[in-house]
Amino acid sequence: MTKVTAQMSISLDGFYAGPEHTDTATNWIDSAEAAGFFRVTRWAVDAAAWRERQGFAGGEQTTDSDIIAETFAAAGAYVMGRRMADGGEVPWGEVPPFRAPVFVVTHRPRPVLHRGGGTSFTYVTDGVASAVAQAKAQAGGKDVQVAGGGSLVRQALALGLVDELELHIAPVLLGDGMRLLGPDLGLGDKEGIELTPIRVIATDGLTHIRYRIEGKRPLVLDNRGRDEGPAVVAVAGS
Amino acid sequence: MTKVTAQMSISLDGFYAGPEHTDTATNWIDSAEAAGFFRVTRWAVDAAAWRERQGFAGGEQTTDSDIIAETFAAAGAYVMGRRMADGGEVPWGEVPPFRAPVFVVTHRPRPVLHRGGGTSFTYVTDGVASAVAQAKAQAGGKDVQVAGGGSLVRQALALGLVDELELHIAPVLLGDGMRLLGPDLGLGDKEGIELTPIRVIATDGLTHIRYRIEGKRPLVLDNRGRDEGPAVVAVAGS
Repeated sequence: MTKVTAQMSISLDGFYAGPEHTDTATNWIDSAEAAGFFRVTRWAVDAAAWRERQGFAGGEQTTDSDIIAETFAAAGAYVMGRRMADGGEVPWGEVPPFRAPVFVVTHRPRPVLHRGGGTSFTYVTDGVASAVAQAKAQAGGKDVQVAGGGSLVRQALALGLVDELELHIAPVLLGDGMRLLGPDLGLGDKEGIELTPIRVIATDGLTHIRYRIEGKRPLVLDNRGRDEGPAVVAVAGS
Repeated sequence: MTKVTAQMSISLDGFYAGPEHTDTATNWIDSAEAAGFFRVTRWAVDAAAWRERQGFAGGEQTTDSDIIAETFAAAGAYVMGRRMADGGEVPWGEVPPFRAPVFVVTHRPRPVLHRGGGTSFTYVTDGVASAVAQAKAQAGGKDVQVAGGGSLVRQALALGLVDELELHIAPVLLGDGMRLLGPDLGLGDKEGIELTPIRVIATDGLTHIRYRIEGKRPLVLDNRGRDEGPAVVAVAGS
């Protein structure tokens, strides 16, 4: 059965890029946003499986590379945010790395863009849920991957559309930047989204954690270990 | 040699508690802050080693419990924020769980508070670095642990005082609350704090990652895998 998955590289403090580049007088490549993005995705660039998909030679045959290969292989279709699709359109070139239909969530109607190697970009103007539904229909039983950016992943999580979330945690604190997970998850007071880790892989620097998303649940007070009703006990060493 | 360590339980989205309780007309225990705090620390409350230190019966003998026991055993002295110390003073009772000297960073001078079982609270009014130095002198060669709260951990990280950071990542998204790691780490533009994971333990739900802190480093652009250099290539599937 088709699962909807999302995966992002983030810093330990939760950023997938540095502070957003908004100054149109300067190049994105020179921005703090790019510097942060390149730092948290460096592990992928070094990996043979990522390089092969980009048409680059070389790279390292590592567990990190295996994870990337597995992720690409699992995808039958993608859902992507408009900003990521725009940013990638030129550099991905005539044969983008996806080799599958990509559904881009946007406000601007545009004809389908057909590229080589099996990649197409379909521009969906009626929202994330519609893009996910269209991707499911085209995924051929494989996964629908919410490819990013972070804003789209958050929207998909808030709408309860994601079955599995995998984070690739890079060993760095950026301090500031574009956060993957923030207050716009649509959670009420004393409510959380419960997860179950289903795979944890520690490689040379990265920690890859895959979670099954259980859904929104109330945050229930327990009795903090006492026999009688809630008592305030701070937790030392934890 | 005495190391300075810090450890905190956080949600996957980086919160160690819900949104800060500031309404003095209501009880902290009923607050969203507490609900979030209890959710991310629940694993500790269930653990035999935590319960033993709090004087509670029972609990589970698990790897989580072993990690707590190891953390308590490694501590020769603690550094603690004022808010955590105030919040714990009554519930920790006459025999607090620390069994070691605790140095509380505060603006209010106060005589040393001696408690049973080897715990004392010394109130340090000249800053975090001074508290850490005093704790080192009393740690008997064991670790100095920055016990929390999050604000103190951040300050100690920003000052470069912490050698190792261990995060206990609870499988929940809180969406909002008190963040452990934020923009006040004192980092410059295109600068990060580099880390090396030295231990990753996945238990039933929790992921415990211990990092050695390497220090502040510039975020250097690489060439994104091309022969010539920097080109913008978005990273798919990562």
